[in-house]
Amino acid sequence: MARWAYVNGRYLPHRQAAVHVEDRGFQFADGVYEVVTLLDGRFADLDGHMERLGRSLSELRMDWPAAPRIVTMIARELVRRNGVRNGSLYLQVTRGVAPRDFKFPADVPSTLVMTVKRVTAFAKPEQLEKGVAVVTVPDIRWGRRDIKTVGLLAPVLAKQQAAESGAYEAWLIDPDGTVTEGSSSNAWIVTQDGVLVTRAPSQKILNGITRLSLLRLARERGIPVEERSFTMEEALAAREAFVSSAGTFALPVTRIDGKPVGEGRPGPITRMLRQAYLDYVAGQVPS
Amino acid sequence: MARWAYVNGRYLPHRQAAVHVEDRGFQFADGVYEVVTLLDGRFADLDGHMERLGRSLSELRMDWPAAPRIVTMIARELVRRNGVRNGSLYLQVTRGVAPRDFKFPADVPSTLVMTVKRVTAFAKPEQLEKGVAVVTVPDIRWGRRDIKTVGLLAPVLAKQQAAESGAYEAWLIDPDGTVTEGSSSNAWIVTQDGVLVTRAPSQKILNGITRLSLLRLARERGIPVEERSFTMEEALAAREAFVSSAGTFALPVTRIDGKPVGEGRPGPITRMLRQAYLDYVAGQVPS
Repeated sequence: MARWAYVNGRYLPHRQAAVHVEDRGFQFADGVYEVVTLLDGRFADLDGHMERLGRSLSELRMDWPAAPRIVTMIARELVRRNGVRNGSLYLQVTRGVAPRDFKFPADVPSTLVMTVKRVTAFAKPEQLEKGVAVVTVPDIRWGRRDIKTVGLLAPVLAKQQAAESGAYEAWLIDPDGTVTEGSSSNAWIVTQDGVLVTRAPSQKILNGITRLSLLRLARERGIPVEERSFTMEEALAAREAFVSSAGTFALPVTRIDGKPVGEGRPGPITRMLRQAYLDYVAGQVPS
Repeated sequence: MARWAYVNGRYLPHRQAAVHVEDRGFQFADGVYEVVTLLDGRFADLDGHMERLGRSLSELRMDWPAAPRIVTMIARELVRRNGVRNGSLYLQVTRGVAPRDFKFPADVPSTLVMTVKRVTAFAKPEQLEKGVAVVTVPDIRWGRRDIKTVGLLAPVLAKQQAAESGAYEAWLIDPDGTVTEGSSSNAWIVTQDGVLVTRAPSQKILNGITRLSLLRLARERGIPVEERSFTMEEALAAREAFVSSAGTFALPVTRIDGKPVGEGRPGPITRMLRQAYLDYVAGQVPS
């Protein structure tokens, strides 16, 4: 099946999907994005992602490229054209094309780009059975991580460092010694007392849409939850640790900087929350 | 005269200059850039800008898109095709086009984009006669401002805030209360003792190419120079203040957050350094 992308009103063969070199997304990272997972033909948390997109746009005083309802329609149509039932939708909005100048351009339409990719397995069997490794790196990102911008070079460098260390993800360490989040995921632990802990939303982290759903699912199941920061030491002493994101759902973390988390095995709370999330998405209306 | 741009081996009409939506410059701000001013057909500090481009690429482990000598040849050819004698060259290199993944892609050629624009006046007469106003805003940028990346959203927001306050530039304030630099310029003062002060290079600022030339020109003229940080209070008590960049050379700053710098008039050291810089460029070999 041919691969299609969407750019500013047109469905195009993926290879031909392009933006002008003076698009502010390319020259200034003046753009925001969302990634929405597709599971068996259903968008996972589409409403949450669209709501957060609206918040990102609003914080940066950027316009919706079209009414949210229309953006959603385009997303569904693009998924249909690509014939993808399991995969992800990538959606990026920028402040548009204008002669290069730091200041916001006047009366320029925002750019809307969407691509879809097929995913055959969201996690490898051994990642679920043995858990993944993370390494810690200093968090050198800017001060507004609550906005989901394409200014992702710091996370890129962190993820590359993780990969070169044989790890799956990097956990970013705040100057105060606590874990802020992963380079492209939120970070969680389950304490020896069985309390689920993840950092509270602030300008220091992105408030993950999957994070919000997992919090709700955990509370519904009576798991005690604390939204607070934790240190690497606390994570190593925890019973379980995991990361969450649109593409990983809840993925067990069993090693941090080469040391085992608790007994070094994936735990039941992580497994249960992952399944709860998959069940929750399976109960949604198909796209 | 038609306007031309250069993208990955091709000279194209400016309107048609485009990059793929999966260019890492568009999706991750995984790219670096330079702006080189053209004065009467001469590149200002071309060698310095090319050297810094090499440093930016090296810090991010990105490849030169072509040998530096070739990049320079392309720049000269693009300027010739555009018939521009006064203006600026914009040059951007990204890590190339690859399926979206935070990690560095393997064996992907970097993207090279160049555009040229005409400039009729680098400063308005009243900016030179009366000086410009700056406002201060918290510096919320990432931890590697020494690399000239396209991750410019924080400077964009700062510059926009300046513009809405009727100011020309924003000076960014470090959490320790000192001025780091302008949103797209370095910040300077001349103390009541006649000492030229600008922040020392570190990961907190971009080491401006114009900054380096101005430091050399000042020293050649016997002006005492201190590379150190200064506060807003020290700036207001200074005899002169100015900003430097490829496009402003040395531009007098006479108001900060609505308060006058010294006696609120442009000063002789700023004027002299601006002229020294223009003379220095005029003495270079024409491009």
